[in-house]
Amino acid sequence: MITLTSDFGLKDPYVAEMKGVILTIHPKAMLVDITNDIEKFNIRMAAFVLASAAPYFPDGTVHLVVVDPEVGTTRRAILIESQKGFFVGPDNGVLMLAAQSQGIEHVYQLTNLKLMLSKVYCTFHGRDIFAPAAAHLDIGVRSSEFGPEIKDPVQPAFTKIEKEADSVIGEVLYIDGFGNIITNMTPKDLANNAIETINVQLPQASLKLKFAKTYAEAKQQQPITLVGGHGFLEIALNQGDAAKKFNVKVGEKIVVTAF
Amino acid sequence: MITLTSDFGLKDPYVAEMKGVILTIHPKAMLVDITNDIEKFNIRMAAFVLASAAPYFPDGTVHLVVVDPEVGTTRRAILIESQKGFFVGPDNGVLMLAAQSQGIEHVYQLTNLKLMLSKVYCTFHGRDIFAPAAAHLDIGVRSSEFGPEIKDPVQPAFTKIEKEADSVIGEVLYIDGFGNIITNMTPKDLANNAIETINVQLPQASLKLKFAKTYAEAKQQQPITLVGGHGFLEIALNQGDAAKKFNVKVGEKIVVTAF
Amino acid sequence: MITLTSDFGLKDPYVAEMKGVILTIHPKAMLVDITNDIEKFNIRMAAFVLASAAPYFPDGTVHLVVVDPEVGTTRRAILIESQKGFFVGPDNGVLMLAAQSQGIEHVYQLTNLKLMLSKVYCTFHGRDIFAPAAAHLDIGVRSSEFGPEIKDPVQPAFTKIEKEADSVIGEVLYIDGFGNIITNMTPKDLANNAIETINVQLPQASLKLKFAKTYAEAKQQQPITLVGGHGFLEIALNQGDAAKKFNVKVGEKIVVTAF
Repeated sequence: MITLTSDFGLKDPYVAEMKGVILTIHPKAMLVDITNDIEKFNIRMAAFVLASAAPYFPDGTVHLVVVDPEVGTTRRAILIESQKGFFVGPDNGVLMLAAQSQGIEHVYQLTNLKLMLSKVYCTFHGRDIFAPAAAHLDIGVRSSEFGPEIKDPVQPAFTKIEKEADSVIGEVLYIDGFGNIITNMTPKDLANNAIETINVQLPQASLKLKFAKTYAEAKQQQPITLVGGHGFLEIALNQGDAAKKFNVKVGEKIVVTAF
Repeated sequence: MITLTSDFGLKDPYVAEMKGVILTIHPKAMLVDITNDIEKFNIRMAAFVLASAAPYFPDGTVHLVVVDPEVGTTRRAILIESQKGFFVGPDNGVLMLAAQSQGIEHVYQLTNLKLMLSKVYCTFHGRDIFAPAAAHLDIGVRSSEFGPEIKDPVQPAFTKIEKEADSVIGEVLYIDGFGNIITNMTPKDLANNAIETINVQLPQASLKLKFAKTYAEAKQQQPITLVGGHGFLEIALNQGDAAKKFNVKVGEKIVVTAF
Repeated sequence: MITLTSDFGLKDPYVAEMKGVILTIHPKAMLVDITNDIEKFNIRMAAFVLASAAPYFPDGTVHLVVVDPEVGTTRRAILIESQKGFFVGPDNGVLMLAAQSQGIEHVYQLTNLKLMLSKVYCTFHGRDIFAPAAAHLDIGVRSSEFGPEIKDPVQPAFTKIEKEADSVIGEVLYIDGFGNIITNMTPKDLANNAIETINVQLPQASLKLKFAKTYAEAKQQQPITLVGGHGFLEIALNQGDAAKKFNVKVGEKIVVTAF
């Protein structure tokens, strides 16, 4: 099984070209779109969407991600083998959030020309390098055949959490359609800090929030914090737009302190 | 075969999460999107789209629908077994138009925890209850194993037609991209009333219309009535926007009288 | 394997109805969307997208295209057998660009009622004629069984290139999301004319351009010409919008002269 996540949209032929390449190599591949509507070049959003969806796919699934603003430069093409499956895409951090949560076993650079299309365009590695790699992996080619193992994949800020004595520092990963502020922190990151009430420091607001299970535990238009279905800590307003109210933007710093 | 209809859109990971859940339970499932672009919470639109598409799918198809504004409340989760296939979704009427036209055999409430995900979030029954139910049905689990049979599934107004001595009363189900006014009436409902010409009473207009086979039977910009490819009676303007001209909105009452 | 290209969008049930029809005839069909977001009635755009994607699909693939502004008139329904696969759709030229580049072997008119749905609506040949034809082809029904061979499929201007002594005349096929001006000329058309530098005459500008391999060979905001990943000659601005700068529209004439 191969999933696809990209910022190509569905008007252009790009996604179909990748699928054609995969199905030429592996005609029985099961293809599932996660989404091809990632905002252009929005690596954080793609990382969030992938990390939300990946846990629900079967073991051995190959996740192909093409959000690749630096295509054609010296940025590397990589393959991550996790304890649960495989991730293929550019080495810009887009794969790391999902791969880390599954436990990374090995990271390889894609350099084996025999496992790429015979002609590689510098503008479309998605079709010419990543799609063939996903197809070959799904057929059963071993990870180590794609190229040398590397130990230093790119780790963007949004894949890291800083822990201090009494606080945890992360950032805003995504703001969803309802205005919920989704952070890059998981329950694991907060284990020793969050019990019933937590302090959340946003750039322009300092909140003391109940740690809830559902939005409805807050009064209407009141803020609350909970772990969403995607597995990340979020700050929400019950029936309101938290990002607007607290003037929060993607990438901004968030500090959580136990009360 | 499992079809999906939802209001989740394709930017977020929700649809992919449902597909991942299904494919984890049933890796060989054939998945077909009807649409995931239903307007948020628009039960009527989802019911119309499903009722239009369902007749074209093979016998035994499982139709999974998640347009569920009351998720997390006491509204029931149901499974309908029809003479032709299965429908899974919330008990808010969204399944009834399609299921009725196939002939409803049994309706069951989904209560068997063994056929759900082990952790059910109150915000995402689509992934945690409905998707597993669809997958288990498609594998061959019997309808009666999902929970108790119920006799009172929700019947919203748009699934009902009132018949009086010389008239039939229904409502506007959907207005399509061309401005055609699609009603909830089928040829069966009109059997004794519509022969060659019918009177159609809209909230702000009373029309005497030729019952036609194609739009082209009317002069340009003139109104006409016909049964569309979706199987419902519609009022159209040849090459014009009927909903705009007659100021008609979804949900408004329509009375049809034989002339 | 069957691909789908249409202007139906994904809100309405039309694409799903076609898929249901195909899967009823051929339950194991592998369906791949090229795109259903072609601009309404934009035959050129559909022809371009199909011609870009088709080369990447396996031999024997059936490409189903429904961009059909004249549905219900006397325009013919056709099936093209190429050296690499099959194309099914209306005889309005939408199939020709892709089919020609694969080498056309035979063209047949779809007239055999046994290979259509039993009831054919004059507004939806996509579902009632083209989808069944694609399914039957994919199962193995021979092309010649669908109807009489024809020798005069519609050849719209955008499938033709005029060659003169020292110039090649084509037109603007598509303007992509970046403003790149994509022409209908392939490297083959330019073989004797384009070496290192070419003159490109647009309706409102005359350019002397380096024939490059990548956008980055031009200075920022400077024009350049190259063959894109889709296989067509394009005029681009490095990191800019060429169509806007040179005020170029789809369908306009382009003359290329060797320097």
